[in-house]
Amino acid sequence: MLVVQKYGGTSVGSLERIESVANRVARAREEGKDLVIVVSAMSGETNKLIEYAHHFSKNPSKREMDMLLSSGERVTAALLAIALNEMGHKTIALTGRQAGIKTDNAHTFARIESIDTTRLEEEIGKGNIVIVAGFQGINEDGEVTTLGRGGSDLSAVALAGALKADACEIYSDVDGIYTTDPRIEPKAKKLDHISYDEMLELASLGAKVLQNRSVELAKKMGVKIVAKSSFSDAEGTVISDKEGESMEEVLVSGVALDKNQARVSLRGVTDRPGIAAEIFSNLAKENIVVDMIIQNASTDDGTTNLGFTVPQNQLEDAKRVMESFDHDLAGADYDESVAKVSIVGVGMKSHSGVAAAAFSALAKSGINIEMISTSEIKVSMIIDEKFSELAVRVLHEEFGLDK
Amino acid sequence: MLVVQKYGGTSVGSLERIESVANRVARAREEGKDLVIVVSAMSGETNKLIEYAHHFSKNPSKREMDMLLSSGERVTAALLAIALNEMGHKTIALTGRQAGIKTDNAHTFARIESIDTTRLEEEIGKGNIVIVAGFQGINEDGEVTTLGRGGSDLSAVALAGALKADACEIYSDVDGIYTTDPRIEPKAKKLDHISYDEMLELASLGAKVLQNRSVELAKKMGVKIVAKSSFSDAEGTVISDKEGESMEEVLVSGVALDKNQARVSLRGVTDRPGIAAEIFSNLAKENIVVDMIIQNASTDDGTTNLGFTVPQNQLEDAKRVMESFDHDLAGADYDESVAKVSIVGVGMKSHSGVAAAAFSALAKSGINIEMISTSEIKVSMIIDEKFSELAVRVLHEEFGLDK
Repeated sequence: MLVVQKYGGTSVGSLERIESVANRVARAREEGKDLVIVVSAMSGETNKLIEYAHHFSKNPSKREMDMLLSSGERVTAALLAIALNEMGHKTIALTGRQAGIKTDNAHTFARIESIDTTRLEEEIGKGNIVIVAGFQGINEDGEVTTLGRGGSDLSAVALAGALKADACEIYSDVDGIYTTDPRIEPKAKKLDHISYDEMLELASLGAKVLQNRSVELAKKMGVKIVAKSSFSDAEGTVISDKEGESMEEVLVSGVALDKNQARVSLRGVTDRPGIAAEIFSNLAKENIVVDMIIQNASTDDGTTNLGFTVPQNQLEDAKRVMESFDHDLAGADYDESVAKVSIVGVGMKSHSGVAAAAFSALAKSGINIEMISTSEIKVSMIIDEKFSELAVRVLHEEFGLDK
Repeated sequence: MLVVQKYGGTSVGSLERIESVANRVARAREEGKDLVIVVSAMSGETNKLIEYAHHFSKNPSKREMDMLLSSGERVTAALLAIALNEMGHKTIALTGRQAGIKTDNAHTFARIESIDTTRLEEEIGKGNIVIVAGFQGINEDGEVTTLGRGGSDLSAVALAGALKADACEIYSDVDGIYTTDPRIEPKAKKLDHISYDEMLELASLGAKVLQNRSVELAKKMGVKIVAKSSFSDAEGTVISDKEGESMEEVLVSGVALDKNQARVSLRGVTDRPGIAAEIFSNLAKENIVVDMIIQNASTDDGTTNLGFTVPQNQLEDAKRVMESFDHDLAGADYDESVAKVSIVGVGMKSHSGVAAAAFSALAKSGINIEMISTSEIKVSMIIDEKFSELAVRVLHEEFGLDK
């Protein structure tokens, strides 16, 4: 049985934590598993190096940033290998290059193109535990590249996929995926199991556990992820192709909240071809991140209503862009403090009652819904920010997630 | 004009220091020089990483140590490149591997076998200042290796040799080689010029500037070294093949002192073949470092006297080894606090009066000489440790080094 384990920054944040990770790896080894261990830099190290670079330049060369930032993971990998060797477990540490991780040329946010597993398989065959410095690879010119924030998760998932590992265990300081944020709803329950798609939609709940890019890659390569805590022995949450594994489906898996939203509502937009494209491309030019977009059908007077949300700190920028469309609008309405609450579940696509139940639960609690957007497995509602926590608790109870 | 510059740990010990190095490099660039810059890890970093490793193991895997320790130089190289790019100077940072430095397999004290200068020449040709992470290379299997303490000096000298650079400037916190230690003799003068051989013999004076391995390599490859301070604009000392450059020779170039010496004198050693080899191989087995060795001609009774010096903290070990030779000795005599004072100069080999002048100068000051050893360009004398500083000052004056 081959398992890839990945330990994040806080899991290897001190020499004592690395020792504790070594013990955990040793236990898995003693259970007879073949192991590839992917590690991040010790927490704080990467930020320290970024600060160093910014001391010299606001916009440092990305190639040099990669050379700089890839050093932290090598340190952790070497230390963990030294610790495991000392415990009597044959272990070898490999850089991204030595682990065969080939990427494109996009320094600081490179994409993994392929993994040559020759060396990895050779070392596993020799009976070695293989430690791999996460977050890094090399491009075709032999230059060191890094994969961007959360890149070590990507390294782990990609290695698990390439090696056809039985599982990819992602260790962090959180012990799994919860039905909602336990700080808002203390009755939140840890999920035993969640599908890739649900996980993608629940990004705000899972952000501390692993990023969407890794979930997408896991889905694509069919890698079973287990999100676990390196601080406890709790079971964790399995992220896999849920529908294939279980016939018993839960309608709603979780409730997610994003409080960093501001709403823009445009009334009476001239319904000429390309107007929406023009608005959103002008927003994109200003690097404004648009989240939800809703357009209603045209009204009788040949105009339409268009709404979208942006991060709160970009609302002023968005207003400025909208002013340039004055002649195309009857009016614009802004709300700088709204929140997006979402319910997510693979079950809901075949059950039209889910959305209705959500709307009525909120209504019963006197919470007005300003905008609605639905996807195959998600219903998102924009509400007044002050009702955020109440809405989460009401929906959590409505769908029996505390059971 | 191509110059290799090397900056040691204290020269790049903080962000401010790296900034100052960047300014110095930029000045050289603005003078029109092509530049290859070799850097060490920021001071303290390598020791910190060694401590980390020793937290896990007293005897960590050397391969993993190399992966660990090679990270520090990469950080400095990337930061310096970022700083220079920001100043408008096209700069690229290369790892040891990327700079083409190939070594043997001796992890943690690898020897440079060859340098493939293709990439270096390509980058120089593109108009880049090339920063190279010192102290590291790769072996034929692509494993990262390090060159041992002082390894960045070796990297610099080897690169200068391979690139046929016009000079290899070694920057540290010392501004050159002095006629003796200025803390002992304030009249000590900085030398403008010294030969490779003198530098090798004056190791104790130059140890803070550069190690013998680098001087040996520079001699072999004919690399002209300039030892300079990165903290001032002082001229520094040129280390090259002195005899070839100047007809005007100074008899004595410097006075060196080593206070960490203990003396072992063996009387009436049975003069059978192989006895000396046996004694010194037994000392070597105990890892005792023997410095001076003096054997007098056999006396009429078929025995000989044998003397040698060891570091003071190894004297007890040496005594223990000597006890096993009881039956071969008439007696042994130990002195745990002696010092070795040496005068060095290429001029002295053709001037027999130099040694005599040294002996008589010490005698005049009431300093007894316990052992003497001479080489082509050095006379070393073992004296009572308490006369160390006095002896240095007497010899410094005797040979007019303060002039």
